[in-house]
Amino acid sequence: MKRENNMLVNAIDREVPSTVNGSKVIPYKGVDKHRPEGFKYAPKVATCIDFPNDGNKLVSGLKEALIKSGLRDGMTISTHHHFRNGDLIANKIFEIASELNVKNLIWFPSASFECHSELIKYMDNGTIHHIEGSLNGALGRYVSYGNMKGMGVLRSHGGRYQAVQDGEVQIDIAVIAAPTADGFGNANGVNGPSACGLLGFALADSQYANKVVVVTDNLVLFPCLPWQIQGNYVDYVVKVDKIGIPENILSGTTAITKSPDRLFLAKLTARFCEHAGIIKDGFSFQAGAGGTSLAVGFYFAEVLKRKGIKARFARGGSNKFLVDMLKDNLLDFILDGQTFDLDGVNSMRHNPNHVDTSPFTSYNYHGKGNFAQLVDVVVLGATEVDVNFNGNVVTHSDGLLLHGLGGWQNCLFSKCTILPIPLFRDRIPVIKDHVTTVCGPGELIDVIITERGIAINPLRKDLIEKTRGSGLPIKSIYELKDEAERICGVPQKPVFGDEVVAIIKWVDGTVIDSVRKVIE
Amino acid sequence: MKRENNMLVNAIDREVPSTVNGSKVIPYKGVDKHRPEGFKYAPKVATCIDFPNDGNKLVSGLKEALIKSGLRDGMTISTHHHFRNGDLIANKIFEIASELNVKNLIWFPSASFECHSELIKYMDNGTIHHIEGSLNGALGRYVSYGNMKGMGVLRSHGGRYQAVQDGEVQIDIAVIAAPTADGFGNANGVNGPSACGLLGFALADSQYANKVVVVTDNLVLFPCLPWQIQGNYVDYVVKVDKIGIPENILSGTTAITKSPDRLFLAKLTARFCEHAGIIKDGFSFQAGAGGTSLAVGFYFAEVLKRKGIKARFARGGSNKFLVDMLKDNLLDFILDGQTFDLDGVNSMRHNPNHVDTSPFTSYNYHGKGNFAQLVDVVVLGATEVDVNFNGNVVTHSDGLLLHGLGGWQNCLFSKCTILPIPLFRDRIPVIKDHVTTVCGPGELIDVIITERGIAINPLRKDLIEKTRGSGLPIKSIYELKDEAERICGVPQKPVFGDEVVAIIKWVDGTVIDSVRKVIE
Repeated sequence: MKRENNMLVNAIDREVPSTVNGSKVIPYKGVDKHRPEGFKYAPKVATCIDFPNDGNKLVSGLKEALIKSGLRDGMTISTHHHFRNGDLIANKIFEIASELNVKNLIWFPSASFECHSELIKYMDNGTIHHIEGSLNGALGRYVSYGNMKGMGVLRSHGGRYQAVQDGEVQIDIAVIAAPTADGFGNANGVNGPSACGLLGFALADSQYANKVVVVTDNLVLFPCLPWQIQGNYVDYVVKVDKIGIPENILSGTTAITKSPDRLFLAKLTARFCEHAGIIKDGFSFQAGAGGTSLAVGFYFAEVLKRKGIKARFARGGSNKFLVDMLKDNLLDFILDGQTFDLDGVNSMRHNPNHVDTSPFTSYNYHGKGNFAQLVDVVVLGATEVDVNFNGNVVTHSDGLLLHGLGGWQNCLFSKCTILPIPLFRDRIPVIKDHVTTVCGPGELIDVIITERGIAINPLRKDLIEKTRGSGLPIKSIYELKDEAERICGVPQKPVFGDEVVAIIKWVDGTVIDSVRKVIE
Repeated sequence: MKRENNMLVNAIDREVPSTVNGSKVIPYKGVDKHRPEGFKYAPKVATCIDFPNDGNKLVSGLKEALIKSGLRDGMTISTHHHFRNGDLIANKIFEIASELNVKNLIWFPSASFECHSELIKYMDNGTIHHIEGSLNGALGRYVSYGNMKGMGVLRSHGGRYQAVQDGEVQIDIAVIAAPTADGFGNANGVNGPSACGLLGFALADSQYANKVVVVTDNLVLFPCLPWQIQGNYVDYVVKVDKIGIPENILSGTTAITKSPDRLFLAKLTARFCEHAGIIKDGFSFQAGAGGTSLAVGFYFAEVLKRKGIKARFARGGSNKFLVDMLKDNLLDFILDGQTFDLDGVNSMRHNPNHVDTSPFTSYNYHGKGNFAQLVDVVVLGATEVDVNFNGNVVTHSDGLLLHGLGGWQNCLFSKCTILPIPLFRDRIPVIKDHVTTVCGPGELIDVIITERGIAINPLRKDLIEKTRGSGLPIKSIYELKDEAERICGVPQKPVFGDEVVAIIKWVDGTVIDSVRKVIE
């Protein structure tokens, strides 16, 4: 398939295609600049006439459910990623589709993981046309080298909700792996042998997909409570032996770092927040899934204990550290979007102050506000930043597309965004003149914290003022960049082809950047 | 205003208008016969650009909120009825609208009560054009005598959700009285000095209204939990002194009967259910808001205790009797649509097995099934039934429109519908050749239980078979009717004018019957 595209230049001077997989797209216009017109996506009106009188929607298996859902060429099939690297269902869907000789499907996961590398064979054999969702590891490499038929579309968690809500993506069949469900389709992630915590990432799918299939390995009598997914949106229920491996939730980026350098970064981040007056009674925070970010929670807790104060809420990804803070009364609430370990799952099951949220409540930019903007400080990772504070989380400096966006873009709307990052990785400086891929505009990124100094975005005069005389190693972003380059030299740029292999959507559905094919 | 209407004849031979308040309507086609075409209503896409960065949506008062919401002539304004006869907000809205000289509003409550009789003056002065919702007591009389400008539209609770979801009613401004809320608009009914239990009747309004105003007398710090109403749907938050009088929730039909005759009916109903094999381990039931219906729960509990078994769930309206059953372990869950007394409110607050539901989960006929159809037996009231088992709940035999539909129509889809009713009221027989107003078709009404005998719908051969030889006083509906008429005589029919003052919608949005003007 040859890709021809008129390239446009967006508001931050990045070239983006005018059409993506055959549909026109809108180039990024700047923060808070694109005003949506029009109406939410309107799914077909259903009727009880089409559903069994006794409410029992069980069918014999996933294959029957997919066939009854009308699986055919070109459809968009969605899954959620609450099992992270322990998902057993997504691959199964495309194995069935391949058996049935269905072609050119679009996979629309809320995120992908290494366990999904198996899907490469279904891209090779034409079952899958392209993926709209994160492209990690092997899948990312596959796409980066130009092997996927269609163009990859990366969205933030909130952007995924927005795209579904606004009808930019129309899901034909949503398959929701549910650790507990009843025959009516009410489902949750908090109970059962495969409990993964919650199912918030599947909320949009349940609300807006044409057909919704719930797959469970723990079928209970009606009513399944809590009904995180409501059966009134569900068409078919399938019982299988095992839907996921909850132990594999704790994968990759969700383990706390053991590196002394990174622990130092985490500690410095906490110190910065303390000096800047951010850590105060009733404050709120979110730490991302990165190893360093996770450790930040640990140090925040130390500060709270020392000061004898508590936080009002933390936004999860929840993990052992947050759960301990809740137990230790350092925190009133965890508002949780996904559990990052089994301590998180268990806490959500038992502690009423550990609350499940969804990308609708937390991140949707096309709602009447969202929770992310209420958070006092968010601590996130990045693969690169540049001297204009733009951030990259999806590509490495070699140009390969190896990570998804997660909730990263959405979190930038918090009151203070901090990126604690090492000054260099594998002797490659992390601060650039220009990031390889812009995932978030610099005006929303407030502080870069490295092991050799802290750069505050000049736009944040308030933070500069508050930390003056604090003894913190405040430097300009240029000083930090020069320091890294003195040690490592200026790295070679990757060699890209012309072909756009993926695009990066901004939270409002516009296109903020393109990812080009990597020439080996 | 002169009303001219082409009258059509629907599938059960009732004359219904072809247009209602200027919009075309579809005549009733029969149970499970009307297949909806088209798509759900699509509200405008919102954007965070239009909402305060700090998430604080507080405005100075209800008047400011209404003005900011663009209140103007002809708009549709919705409210919920969880405060039942203790609501302090609905009247206030129209007082403000009247002050602002806004005309021809449509009030779209989820139900109305005697406390809303004050609104008659706003119908008289042109502030309100008409009411779409239940028309009880004084409001009903007002409409029955032809005084309301527009035509009344009565819908079941599920029909109201359906109408909003399908865009038959487009709410311009939803005003949601919330016993607890935060400044972002998250709200619940379960906490605070005016706690009324839940806010499920306002769910559709929050999801689909153009502007949503939350009015609370208990403003809490974010996050307000549980968020029965999600702030992401809310435009403005208003703090007032008092939103409602929770003691007045227990009003009218929600007190258990003290009449020995009615208690006898309730007991006979329980006996019938026992003999028919309905009361068994794991069964489910719902009793309506009528005094007799409420007492049925009491007798069900006696049977369960004696048999040493328990029910899986009861659908509320919750009251002291249901709450006691839950406490006494005679019941696994209460799935509650509205609390009928303060015991219900308190139980919902503290007992995780007392769960709030909404008309979406419980009653929406244009969903992928609903809970009502899963219920084994439902016990409801009626003002009249006829020899074809058709039921009436809105008009009396004098023709006056004095009651709303509540969830009555929706409940008819349960596995067995029983109406325990006295054979006559004030010497007027309750069983007629034809009911004054058909609210539910006879094929869905299974059993009529009176103090002088039980009539089983001939369609329910299974029930006839199961209760044969039970010693229960089984009679034909004609025998019961004759018996009543022997005692009371055949009552005079009311004198109606031609003018249609209100219509009765069926659960699928079609028109099942008309209510005509009463000539005094």
